[in-house]
Amino acid sequence: MKTNLCELLNIKYPILQGAMARISESSLVISVSEAGGLGILAGGNAPKDYIVNEIRKIKKGTDKPFAVNIMLLSPFCDDIVDAICEEGVPIVTTGAGDPSKYMNKFKENDIIVIPVVPSVAIAKRMERLGVDAIIAEGMEAGGHIGKTTTLPLIPQIVDAVSIPVIAAGGIGDGRGAFAMFALGAVGVQIGTRFLVSTECIIHQNYKDKILKSSDISTVTTGAITGHPVRGLKNKLTKDYEIIERKEFAKEVPCFDELEKITLGALERAVSGDVITGTLMAGQIAGMINKEQSSKEIIDDIVVEFENTKKRLGV
Amino acid sequence: MKTNLCELLNIKYPILQGAMARISESSLVISVSEAGGLGILAGGNAPKDYIVNEIRKIKKGTDKPFAVNIMLLSPFCDDIVDAICEEGVPIVTTGAGDPSKYMNKFKENDIIVIPVVPSVAIAKRMERLGVDAIIAEGMEAGGHIGKTTTLPLIPQIVDAVSIPVIAAGGIGDGRGAFAMFALGAVGVQIGTRFLVSTECIIHQNYKDKILKSSDISTVTTGAITGHPVRGLKNKLTKDYEIIERKEFAKEVPCFDELEKITLGALERAVSGDVITGTLMAGQIAGMINKEQSSKEIIDDIVVEFENTKKRLGV
Repeated sequence: MKTNLCELLNIKYPILQGAMARISESSLVISVSEAGGLGILAGGNAPKDYIVNEIRKIKKGTDKPFAVNIMLLSPFCDDIVDAICEEGVPIVTTGAGDPSKYMNKFKENDIIVIPVVPSVAIAKRMERLGVDAIIAEGMEAGGHIGKTTTLPLIPQIVDAVSIPVIAAGGIGDGRGAFAMFALGAVGVQIGTRFLVSTECIIHQNYKDKILKSSDISTVTTGAITGHPVRGLKNKLTKDYEIIERKEFAKEVPCFDELEKITLGALERAVSGDVITGTLMAGQIAGMINKEQSSKEIIDDIVVEFENTKKRLGV
Repeated sequence: MKTNLCELLNIKYPILQGAMARISESSLVISVSEAGGLGILAGGNAPKDYIVNEIRKIKKGTDKPFAVNIMLLSPFCDDIVDAICEEGVPIVTTGAGDPSKYMNKFKENDIIVIPVVPSVAIAKRMERLGVDAIIAEGMEAGGHIGKTTTLPLIPQIVDAVSIPVIAAGGIGDGRGAFAMFALGAVGVQIGTRFLVSTECIIHQNYKDKILKSSDISTVTTGAITGHPVRGLKNKLTKDYEIIERKEFAKEVPCFDELEKITLGALERAVSGDVITGTLMAGQIAGMINKEQSSKEIIDDIVVEFENTKKRLGV
């Protein structure tokens, strides 16, 4: 499963663990990096103190490379970039915006920069900006998404840029990883499957919802706000859809009501409230049916990848 | 590129040409079947006379296998099934519904039946019904679509059924075909790329719109009607979205206005009206940048498939 991405990031397998706000913290990151993938700490909307503390825990827990994801809409972005530089984090992924503002600082500190992109135009812009690789993410992914799906997105981006392309969205096993390599990707980012890692800190209720879900268990909400999110269907997503429809009716979106029901919803999900929490998950959730350690997950993916290779060689 | 699907359908390559109403007629079907793929005549809403006439043209143009797609919402379904049996059509694909009603008749006439399905549950139901294979189609496809994307859909369906699975939606070249084989599919159905086949009868304006499109050129309209459709963005889709929003406002959808602007829209597109016509196309449209004969398209896909295999070291 080795590709040039392994050398670039100094990792054993080109498998990145997707950054999930309030979920991908030190415990999950350490377990993935120790297993030979790239663990990624989610910056989310967390303040600097939290990030510094988590980075130090990670460094204590593993001497392997890891990354921090910067959510560029965070009010603490500047602080988090400082923390990343001060703590000597080797790799950064970015989401929800344009990292131009920080590029000089990253490069001065020899930090590898990998933005998550949803389209060819943004991928090309990022390449011109001098990033080291990109994560091209399809809209079957969990959490905040774009509009194009992974299968048509990857080859179009691979044809448009010369830097390494990592595929994300809809990948849950070694078959999916091999498929992405066929499209020209040299790595994969996997989120949903790591939600059920034994080292992932989300409540068992949330994990159980993933384990029981089917191919049609997710829904996209929030298109009206310009920031659509994919998660498992539950009372929250139903309520959201009703309010969204009412907002259309007024033709003046009343975001207050939406904000009210989603405030703290991620925290509630992580704590086990599967009724009114935001259970972010991708469409591949239906394929995920056992809780395993991050090491078992990664080893499984590598074995399935090799088996797929053998199967197709016959 | 040979798989068990080739034997089942008696074709050289496991490449099916997607059935596109008013577009996939005898000219395109003959060219694809002659090139070693499976040409598929789109039944659409056409009456029996038209279908019989087209089937006879196809039989005159090729002695290779071909299929007819039955759109199960057509008012002429019963007649078309009769025509298929009377004319000795070897293979049928079905869309937009449940073909149970006709299964006995198909089986009495030794017709191979392959429904298009959007989810695991429907795939399993079709297998129980005794169909020969299924086409699992993701929502990045052009035309009428479901909700799940191809990449997570295929492995979940492959794991759920024992009959051959053909992947559709988002596939435009040999890399995509190989990726689908990695997921466990044994064939691919390709629509959008055949829109620009020299043997495809759509107006050059429509072809030019495909050739100039990007990864973000398509949009889904009609979710409000329960029958979402993917096509290239144009004045029609913008107008549709405005009316759709107004309908939400009233909370009583006024479908009349939508029907008015979409009436005859497919015919207009085929005739070259790219402003107010429905330019059905999938998200892979952005990757398609040259007009070729169906034979060139299929030969290209096969070469790319083999090159992908070599690149991956299989």
